[in-house]
Amino acid sequence: MSAEFFEDPDGTREQILAATYHTLCEHGYADLTISRIGEEFEKSPSLVYHHYESKDELVLECLEFMIDRFEHRTTDDVDQPRERLEEFFGWLLESNIEVERQQFIALLVELRTLASRDESYRRQFLRSDQVLERYLSNLLNSGIERGEFRECETEQVAAYVLTTLTGVMLRRSTHDIDPAWLEDVRAELEAYLEARVYRE
Amino acid sequence: MSAEFFEDPDGTREQILAATYHTLCEHGYADLTISRIGEEFEKSPSLVYHHYESKDELVLECLEFMIDRFEHRTTDDVDQPRERLEEFFGWLLESNIEVERQQFIALLVELRTLASRDESYRRQFLRSDQVLERYLSNLLNSGIERGEFRECETEQVAAYVLTTLTGVMLRRSTHDIDPAWLEDVRAELEAYLEARVYRE
Repeated sequence: MSAEFFEDPDGTREQILAATYHTLCEHGYADLTISRIGEEFEKSPSLVYHHYESKDELVLECLEFMIDRFEHRTTDDVDQPRERLEEFFGWLLESNIEVERQQFIALLVELRTLASRDESYRRQFLRSDQVLERYLSNLLNSGIERGEFRECETEQVAAYVLTTLTGVMLRRSTHDIDPAWLEDVRAELEAYLEARVYRE
Repeated sequence: MSAEFFEDPDGTREQILAATYHTLCEHGYADLTISRIGEEFEKSPSLVYHHYESKDELVLECLEFMIDRFEHRTTDDVDQPRERLEEFFGWLLESNIEVERQQFIALLVELRTLASRDESYRRQFLRSDQVLERYLSNLLNSGIERGEFRECETEQVAAYVLTTLTGVMLRRSTHDIDPAWLEDVRAELEAYLEARVYRE
């Protein structure tokens, strides 16, 4: 999930959601207002008020849109499961990421903490976790079918790896842009996958 | 880190910090006010205003106090490193935890997200991560010295495991009290430690 989903917004609804996404990345949730989204949505700020009553309505729809897009993009059978897996980890584990990705990671964490007290946010993040776990399980199953990965409990591995990556998100969002632990986590995750998932 | 640090507060300062801790657990950071802490601090609410100017000053000192206590409790050489390690994981990975622990986990996550925009909170959580990584490294080194653990990059393993546990915190704070993925994470973390750390 990231900015790419909003690169070419189709129609007014997607344009408003893209404006919400960009405003969120720049100001964070706490400082988000419908009026700021209206400013970002240059076409016609009043249209935002016309379609949405609260900032949460916009943010929740924006989250749902990204989850739908990610879910839609993923397929059951994967051609190069190990490359896809490494790509997925890399998005969170790379050093020297651009400021926009760093902001997006911090934003996802900020929105996720709303879920501890708000049922609507909780529902979105439960779904997002399910979609991501399913994506990881599919990659693992494809690797096993191709003989590239060992037989393993794919759902269990997916839940574990997603949890580690969730930890990376929380730590990254609250540390400097290139923390020392990042290289350690990358190396040890690789060692774990060598031991439990990848065939020699 | 948890309620135990505030069980027997010593002197006015610790009593005020204990009141801050209990108010935080009950109301969360967003709804915290000095006046609520004053109500919890039955002895003399006005003393809280006398000593502290803002709620952040209180919360930051409360965090620092817990980190100091945890750091103070840990020792270099550990008698039963595997048991200590499992105890440490268990605190976060157990099912059916009491509401207070669940609230405390959600609170730590809520405070941690403040660190993405506030340097003072960032400093506390950087230190807390350092203290916890050092604790884990010490356990691993003790296990290696005793011949119970394999030779491994202890700092790397510590950083990785702490990241996974940080992910458990964020996921637990935003899911139901006994999510299905918890058992998966527990089992796969155990498998990882069998493969990389524990000797048969």
